[in-house]
Amino acid sequence: MSREGRVTASSIAKDLRAEIRAGTYKPGDRLPSEAALMTTYGVARMTARHGLSMLKDEGLTVTRHGSGVFVRSFDPIVFDSTGSASDDSTITPVMDETDAGLTVRTLAVTPAEDPTEEARKALGLQPGVQVTTRERLHVKGRKPMLHGVSYVPTSIAADTPIAEDEIGPGGTYARLKELGHEPVRFHEDVVARMPTIEEIEALRIEPGTAVLQVMRTALDAQGLAVEYSRIVLDGGEFMLRYDFDA
Amino acid sequence: MSREGRVTASSIAKDLRAEIRAGTYKPGDRLPSEAALMTTYGVARMTARHGLSMLKDEGLTVTRHGSGVFVRSFDPIVFDSTGSASDDSTITPVMDETDAGLTVRTLAVTPAEDPTEEARKALGLQPGVQVTTRERLHVKGRKPMLHGVSYVPTSIAADTPIAEDEIGPGGTYARLKELGHEPVRFHEDVVARMPTIEEIEALRIEPGTAVLQVMRTALDAQGLAVEYSRIVLDGGEFMLRYDFDA
Repeated sequence: MSREGRVTASSIAKDLRAEIRAGTYKPGDRLPSEAALMTTYGVARMTARHGLSMLKDEGLTVTRHGSGVFVRSFDPIVFDSTGSASDDSTITPVMDETDAGLTVRTLAVTPAEDPTEEARKALGLQPGVQVTTRERLHVKGRKPMLHGVSYVPTSIAADTPIAEDEIGPGGTYARLKELGHEPVRFHEDVVARMPTIEEIEALRIEPGTAVLQVMRTALDAQGLAVEYSRIVLDGGEFMLRYDFDA
Repeated sequence: MSREGRVTASSIAKDLRAEIRAGTYKPGDRLPSEAALMTTYGVARMTARHGLSMLKDEGLTVTRHGSGVFVRSFDPIVFDSTGSASDDSTITPVMDETDAGLTVRTLAVTPAEDPTEEARKALGLQPGVQVTTRERLHVKGRKPMLHGVSYVPTSIAADTPIAEDEIGPGGTYARLKELGHEPVRFHEDVVARMPTIEEIEALRIEPGTAVLQVMRTALDAQGLAVEYSRIVLDGGEFMLRYDFDA
């Protein structure tokens, strides 16, 4: 432990961070309590508390109320865009129902509306052309994990199950295939960013946690953009996977 | 503006956040100063300052010292793993020298050492088998953007330019090809997380900014893992891109 000069919250955080990295405290282990840090470092409670909160803001720890501060573990669900599901902890784009222990809740289906500018450009639509949107939440147990909005040109989706609450097995991609617009090629852009206030609430995201935002365009064999998805994933719960040839 | 009850830093942040989203303040625009917020809301300087700092912690704004607080713009460099470079703002894995206005600085080359556990597993090596590591930084102007460490089994890299400071045009992948180990297939895992203290310093990452971590394994035609890269990208500067067939 650093002992030179006055003990600050930063120096307590630095020591604990080093001990987490060295494996002295492993994922799932409980860190010393505020009381223990007060004794060890001879500091006030607020200093000990601030030291612990710095680690939380960095995403290194999680607080379980009533039982303490624990080293965060990262045992991600694999979100495999290029692959077919290989095991129980993997989900792929064609799964629109349940997998990897996730339940899909359809939040809203809007048969026809103006697309967001982002969706309009991704689908290559002229202004004024309408889309059918499906908004969904993937939930594990009671924890919301992923929020997705899917846009399909209404010219394709109108009067099909894509515009219904119950889309049926295989989801949007299966329906697009039946309609002669099977997605055969995908374009994905991925960014990492801090969650918005709304996303923190909707996905119950821990402090110090980023989100992954996947923007996927699905193209049919004619090169027509038939669907655009904007998917926000809790970065503390997911890993994206891609396998591809040079 | 919210006028019911006491004006708090949170309510100032809420108003400004809404105005940023509505486009009242666009990327690059300057937000009202602390003094202006004090007048508008009738609050103390610390309240105005705290309101502005909340937006910064969310990654919505950046501070330019001496000139104020600005709405953050996101004009990302595209990091295109599956594609060949299509324009000046795109970089691909085969570019080991300069592109998209980036300069590559080789930080360290270690001809033979024990791999990290992560690299050892990715390369499928037995414990005790050594690797050649190359550590590099991609810099734009004076801003470090990306930090990468590349691991090649020393059995392949020994006595080749991969173990030298000057690797030559095309970088590691070009040298691997000359050695009969051309990478033909890639496996990438991607996570989003908060930067570590060291990454914040090394990449000069703004507050409220996540990093993307790409873990790429390159396989040759025999299916041998010939290189593993662990790449950390400033999430405020990059977007990953993937194009692939169903």
